[in-house]
Amino acid sequence: MKKLAVVALGGNALLRADQNGTIDEQETNAFQTSEKLIKLLNRDYNLVITHGNGPQVGNIMLANAAGKKVYGLPEMPLDICVAYSQGFIGYIIEQQLRNVLQANDMDRDIITIITQVLVNKDDPAFKNPTKPIGPYYTKEEADKFTKETGSKFVKDPRGRGWRKVVASPKPLVISNKKSIERIARDEHIVIAVGGGGIPAFFVKENKLQGIDAVIDKDLASALLAIQINADKLFILTDVPKVYINYHTPQEKPIDRMTIAEARRYLDEGQFTEGSMAPKIRAAIHFVENTGKDTIITQTTKLGIDDGGTRVVMI
Amino acid sequence: MKKLAVVALGGNALLRADQNGTIDEQETNAFQTSEKLIKLLNRDYNLVITHGNGPQVGNIMLANAAGKKVYGLPEMPLDICVAYSQGFIGYIIEQQLRNVLQANDMDRDIITIITQVLVNKDDPAFKNPTKPIGPYYTKEEADKFTKETGSKFVKDPRGRGWRKVVASPKPLVISNKKSIERIARDEHIVIAVGGGGIPAFFVKENKLQGIDAVIDKDLASALLAIQINADKLFILTDVPKVYINYHTPQEKPIDRMTIAEARRYLDEGQFTEGSMAPKIRAAIHFVENTGKDTIITQTTKLGIDDGGTRVVMI
Repeated sequence: MKKLAVVALGGNALLRADQNGTIDEQETNAFQTSEKLIKLLNRDYNLVITHGNGPQVGNIMLANAAGKKVYGLPEMPLDICVAYSQGFIGYIIEQQLRNVLQANDMDRDIITIITQVLVNKDDPAFKNPTKPIGPYYTKEEADKFTKETGSKFVKDPRGRGWRKVVASPKPLVISNKKSIERIARDEHIVIAVGGGGIPAFFVKENKLQGIDAVIDKDLASALLAIQINADKLFILTDVPKVYINYHTPQEKPIDRMTIAEARRYLDEGQFTEGSMAPKIRAAIHFVENTGKDTIITQTTKLGIDDGGTRVVMI
Repeated sequence: MKKLAVVALGGNALLRADQNGTIDEQETNAFQTSEKLIKLLNRDYNLVITHGNGPQVGNIMLANAAGKKVYGLPEMPLDICVAYSQGFIGYIIEQQLRNVLQANDMDRDIITIITQVLVNKDDPAFKNPTKPIGPYYTKEEADKFTKETGSKFVKDPRGRGWRKVVASPKPLVISNKKSIERIARDEHIVIAVGGGGIPAFFVKENKLQGIDAVIDKDLASALLAIQINADKLFILTDVPKVYINYHTPQEKPIDRMTIAEARRYLDEGQFTEGSMAPKIRAAIHFVENTGKDTIITQTTKLGIDDGGTRVVMI
């Protein structure tokens, strides 16, 4: 039986910080990423692909704010914006991956699944929202929104204005996990849990509802990998390996680290919050719960034997 | 073995013409529609659900136009807007259908699949775009866009301005059709081919690309029903049956009609273009290719024995 891998694509797999976000750019990036992904297929992995949505969902929220202002369109809450972004990004990755498969005479279905992820309505994150999202507003606009909707806004440290902050609750259950596993083990490629999934929770026992929050994409990917019994988790980023003493004269790449070492480095503050630190936590989560390895690396090192940093149990 | 049904939801299953398009409205509509859909599950059908996206994709295009104007956001072509709408509408239907299933102690996965539909780049529809979509513009704006992008604009007959028209090519192949059939026959509910699918075609032998076009939702649903070997196609609309001499003193509901009769009525101009006529053509397409029946009715008549108009081979 083939092994099953979850590959979590970083935001820059589709859109780099130096790009504008045109569709041409994103298609080209998705094509180049897909060329690397098929190396895992050639190594006898079945694949489930997850992806970030930071820049895309930011633009979606901007467009919605503009649509409300210019045309009086109804407000689209954050869960809907994440659903937009899953459709959009999933479509682009699926299409370009199909092109790469066809160019390589490989034939597989690629199934992009809109994915809800259950969170707990009592998650402490809801008491202290910290994740900034969407457009920048003036102080007056932000105050008005807070009054109208109860949303919390914070001042951007780089002076670009005021920005809404939302909670980032812990993902608990990936919707359709059994189906995702079955489809992937049938040798189809699944794209799922985009942007960390659409956060939803039970307002009453039987009543599921979306919520204005975002789920950390790497943590949701690790949870997916656990819940579909994956054999390996690949977390892709823009550096070939994890480093300690990053950007200092003592900088050192790590080939292999145990979760105990990873935790110690985290405690030492070796990894940047909002960047490498959440990837390390996601890696620990998967390894600790499964005993299997996580690889953190960049797309170009996929399928290369000593590529990346291997996070292991012991 | 259970029978397999494709159910094509009309735009008003989610958003009625007299509503503004808020998320609350759309969730409530989706919940009410879902309560009717489970009657088909109780009658031993496996289900694939398709849906329109007219009002939603219109708002998405408006928001994008506003985002470009206000924030200079990059243009989102129509295929991307359809992908947004599939994510959005699929998510809402899936969530509300889950709520209805849970309230009825029924347990099934619901898999919303982003769906591309292949069209022919030489389809004659591309020579004569006729389907109006998106925002209304002034004549000056429309002329400017035509110059910049080659898009065709037409004057709105009700004087609301100028509107882009796009081609509505014939759907040829539903992506992932085998997987859709397999998942549905595994007794999961599939939501697919939203808005008629994301139109894509092969620019070169191996190169798939999205295109600025829309596919008729009912025709795409009929093609899906054919390609997944469905036993029945339900086309939902806002009247209980098909009528001849509609809105005249001779108005008469039809309980059953052969495809020969349906063609004759079409030739007589009995059915409104853009409304009942495409549903009748889709029904004929399914019945003619499979020998199986199509039911045209409204949501509230689902699962009722004499509900709707049955379109049959002979």
